[in-house]
Amino acid sequence: MPRLLHHRLDPASRLARLMFAEYGVAVDLEDVKPWARDPHLLEINPAGTVPILIDEGQPNAVGVLSVLHAIEDRYSPAAVAGLFPADPRNRPEMWRLCEWVLLKLNDEVTRYVVEEKILKRDRPGATPDPSVLRVAKANLIEHMLYFNWLFATRQWLAGDAMTLADFALAAHLSSLDYLGDVDWETAVEVRQWYARIKSRPAFRTLLNDRMGGMPPHAGYADLDF
Amino acid sequence: MPRLLHHRLDPASRLARLMFAEYGVAVDLEDVKPWARDPHLLEINPAGTVPILIDEGQPNAVGVLSVLHAIEDRYSPAAVAGLFPADPRNRPEMWRLCEWVLLKLNDEVTRYVVEEKILKRDRPGATPDPSVLRVAKANLIEHMLYFNWLFATRQWLAGDAMTLADFALAAHLSSLDYLGDVDWETAVEVRQWYARIKSRPAFRTLLNDRMGGMPPHAGYADLDF
Repeated sequence: MPRLLHHRLDPASRLARLMFAEYGVAVDLEDVKPWARDPHLLEINPAGTVPILIDEGQPNAVGVLSVLHAIEDRYSPAAVAGLFPADPRNRPEMWRLCEWVLLKLNDEVTRYVVEEKILKRDRPGATPDPSVLRVAKANLIEHMLYFNWLFATRQWLAGDAMTLADFALAAHLSSLDYLGDVDWETAVEVRQWYARIKSRPAFRTLLNDRMGGMPPHAGYADLDF
Repeated sequence: MPRLLHHRLDPASRLARLMFAEYGVAVDLEDVKPWARDPHLLEINPAGTVPILIDEGQPNAVGVLSVLHAIEDRYSPAAVAGLFPADPRNRPEMWRLCEWVLLKLNDEVTRYVVEEKILKRDRPGATPDPSVLRVAKANLIEHMLYFNWLFATRQWLAGDAMTLADFALAAHLSSLDYLGDVDWETAVEVRQWYARIKSRPAFRTLLNDRMGGMPPHAGYADLDF
């Protein structure tokens, strides 16, 4: 069984878990704290990041780009469409929005929220910095407006079919939603899309997540939120 | 002819240009300043980033992930090995190091240097912040040590064959080298690798680059530097 070194609220790890669940592949999850600089983790990944995929008889896939390509290469069912569009003409828009989520949304919102609210819990005396969280919140509003605008004319993030870009965005929003940082009232179209993707069987693994000492925000696991 | 919206010293744009040159595809280059928030650019890419690939009869590829996949899909010569390894077993290490360069090296070094030295030239009264450049320089030393360590046991960045990861690193180092920010003396193995990749015909397009009013650092275009 493939083994995934991950953190429950790390959005990149969540993307990997969604892919495995969508492809019906059971995966052995090993919780790590990437910021703890554990020597065992650093030996596998000197960058100290997750996810990391350890698959028997295969080279390790280290980091989100490596892991998502490895899952697609190794586990995408050949008979049905995978999360990478079969038609190359549909791939540029998928990668544009994957980059938007994995780089831009992450840089401007998710990584700050996770750092302030999760990472600082492990630092004695550290508390979340309200000014950083305020900036992240303001940035998230701009991102939600853009996604809302996209979903007004398309059913899925990159077009008419569900792709990896949907899973990337859903992974990020699910981490933020766990922490109570998504204002669904102001983003009607995004909310409708999220309700749809949240209802997929693949999503159950995330909705059952619980961080010790930190219960999810109300509505996190409700399909009717 | 494919058209590439780019900036001469943007490392992600340089990666795209290296790929085109390696595949022997002529490309029409259009200089843009991504930070100028030009409405024409923002209409094509609301994220305001480059590179952007405009190919007749094909959907636009917007952003580095989209562009590098589009170039590989559309222009990689089927008969010879492209920059993505043909054997899936060699891809995880390539993606790990692509991520290292495109995300980590960029976040910790290149983007600060480009912001301080290039972007600020367009802001009246702005000057490079020496404290930011000092941090970037210190970070680059750590990165060079790691790459040096890798090149001590492998010929190319991701293993025995040249891949996209080599072009990604070469693109970033070439931007930094233009600006005189690479200390080659302390990184012997990286230097040997860079001399090899710099000698490839594909590299000529970059070595001929000149920014108006900002000549390259001594040795930038020398194959024997």
